Amino acid sequence: MALPTLGILGGGQLGRMTALAATAMGVPVRFLIPRPESSIAPFGDVTIGDWEDRDVLRTFAEGCDVITVESEWAPADQLAEVLPEGVALWPEPATLEIIRHKGRQKEVLAGAGLPVPDFALCHSREDALETAESFGYPVMLKQPRGSYDGYGNHTARQPGDVREAWEKFGQPDGLLVEAWVPFRRELTALIARSPAGDYVTYPVVFTEQRDHRCHAVVVPSGASAAVEAEAARVGLAAVRAVNGIGVTAVELFETEDGQILINEMAPRPHNTGHYTIEACHTSQFENHVRAVLGLPLGDPTLRVPAACMINILGNRNGPPRLEGLDAALSFNGVSLHLYGKDASRPGRKMGHLTATGASGADARARAEHAASLIQL
Amino acid sequence: MALPTLGILGGGQLGRMTALAATAMGVPVRFLIPRPESSIAPFGDVTIGDWEDRDVLRTFAEGCDVITVESEWAPADQLAEVLPEGVALWPEPATLEIIRHKGRQKEVLAGAGLPVPDFALCHSREDALETAESFGYPVMLKQPRGSYDGYGNHTARQPGDVREAWEKFGQPDGLLVEAWVPFRRELTALIARSPAGDYVTYPVVFTEQRDHRCHAVVVPSGASAAVEAEAARVGLAAVRAVNGIGVTAVELFETEDGQILINEMAPRPHNTGHYTIEACHTSQFENHVRAVLGLPLGDPTLRVPAACMINILGNRNGPPRLEGLDAALSFNGVSLHLYGKDASRPGRKMGHLTATGASGADARARAEHAASLIQL
Repeated sequence: MALPTLGILGGGQLGRMTALAATAMGVPVRFLIPRPESSIAPFGDVTIGDWEDRDVLRTFAEGCDVITVESEWAPADQLAEVLPEGVALWPEPATLEIIRHKGRQKEVLAGAGLPVPDFALCHSREDALETAESFGYPVMLKQPRGSYDGYGNHTARQPGDVREAWEKFGQPDGLLVEAWVPFRRELTALIARSPAGDYVTYPVVFTEQRDHRCHAVVVPSGASAAVEAEAARVGLAAVRAVNGIGVTAVELFETEDGQILINEMAPRPHNTGHYTIEACHTSQFENHVRAVLGLPLGDPTLRVPAACMINILGNRNGPPRLEGLDAALSFNGVSLHLYGKDASRPGRKMGHLTATGASGADARARAEHAASLIQL
Repeated sequence: MALPTLGILGGGQLGRMTALAATAMGVPVRFLIPRPESSIAPFGDVTIGDWEDRDVLRTFAEGCDVITVESEWAPADQLAEVLPEGVALWPEPATLEIIRHKGRQKEVLAGAGLPVPDFALCHSREDALETAESFGYPVMLKQPRGSYDGYGNHTARQPGDVREAWEKFGQPDGLLVEAWVPFRRELTALIARSPAGDYVTYPVVFTEQRDHRCHAVVVPSGASAAVEAEAARVGLAAVRAVNGIGVTAVELFETEDGQILINEMAPRPHNTGHYTIEACHTSQFENHVRAVLGLPLGDPTLRVPAACMINILGNRNGPPRLEGLDAALSFNGVSLHLYGKDASRPGRKMGHLTATGASGADARARAEHAASLIQL
């Protein structure tokens, strides 16, 4: 066999890191993106075109053996309609369709008997207000489609917050109202699964959000072995429930009484899995490539005792002016990943760094310190 | 500061892996190569042009902040003559000039008081024959310039071999005659050094050659702590003697009585350092990039107990037909690197794989087994 060519729809940092992993293995990569993206500027085979156009999609697909998506929002369904004989597309559009809609996602997971917070998809303001009342304030309000990294999520502490959220993003899909989960920790289960159903499960990680965005990921998670086992079990069942192929991330709550509830899923390599580049035998990006190509999956276990990843967010508008690089690189065991984005803005994910170490606390101390020195 | 742009003269697997490391950090990379190279086809910023032409070199250099070479044979001296103000070139041409000529290299090392095998640069056949006689057969005969991976090296067991070698490659530079070293092991010291003189030393590795080509690299080396310390000391002194900047490899003999002798040097990331991608906190490629950019150097120590790298050589002529990939990828803790070369030939370096493990023997067993399954 020759190494197949991998097509990627999308060109942000996830596509960039997937392409780096594929190239390291020897897998040729092609990108299709609707507009120029600085994150994938280093790569040579990039098509910029209307990626909802059937001819553009078909021409692109004809040069690939397997195609994957960088995000659940890529036009996989349109691609599926024109996919040439013998070209594979993973994950399948049905998986993305479920995950794109947070209400439908919750329905599928609950329908599979999996633990999720109480939720209701509300189609009127009154319905949302009544649901919030019945769950008890505070509640989480989510735009069912199009939300990410906290955009489109809102914590409502009183009826006025529900009314405001309804005005802002209650249309056209309604509003997902979720009971507030008093959690001890947020965890993520990360699974790579091949079309044949083989899978590997990465270590369960602890994740810390700031302003609804991932700030830090620490492994080991600090949760008990029983909680980690339940997180892995629920994660795998959730991936199977949506037929996730490639890497799928399952964000979880560990409640104050030690139960696991599913928060949200992502059908792709995930921010909480970036630490795997340094810390695991096979990174999430390499295993995503292996999985969609139908190759044997690599060992997901840790090759170091512990690791911590910290996101590096923009803190101003405009072209990045990188400060603090020398100081940050002076920490032993810290690996820096900048995504090459040509414009910074407050809160934008510009890069990340990972420290490996003897314990989660040790890795986190160095990672936080190094990251705090970088200004973009 | 913004991240500087790195220019690379050359486009084989070393340039490919250097560019992967640079891209992962966020460092933009540009290549200049005299003819198309499939190994760097994945990258977007590749100039193909006459790289001995001053205008081509100057135009390329104007788009870079720092330029490095993939091999000692790249035209660094021509580039230095047209280097724009403010653009750096590392290593400097004088370093390459010493290393290109194996006789001059040995003279500089011996002149610095460093241990090398007995050698003489012979300018006539009679001189070569007399030198061989005085050293005693067998002797090593080396073409002073242009030899690599065993091409241009020859073991002479009798005067007829010397005469034959003189006909084949005694002109125009003469023939380097070296006393045969009865060695216990071949070792490599790998050092990354910045223009300011900061340096880090990688673990000393055991290397095994087959047909004058690197076959396997194992770390830990199996040598005693005293021998490893002497290897590291000699390696660093050799790098300083030639003012090596970036990564420099120093190939060494451990003699049967435990002495260290320098065999050869390479002023760049080296085949014996590929294992660092998986096994060390900071790979040789990342530290080469950091060094030539003048950034702080990363931790060169192992993050796993042991590792073994095996080269994957072509075994037929023509386009590679990859066989055995699935089986090879099924080994836990094995990372495969194929270089994307579009033509195989017997003995050509087409890729490598690295196994990490609990001991050198464990890693080597899996690496050898996995590599033996791949046919290119």
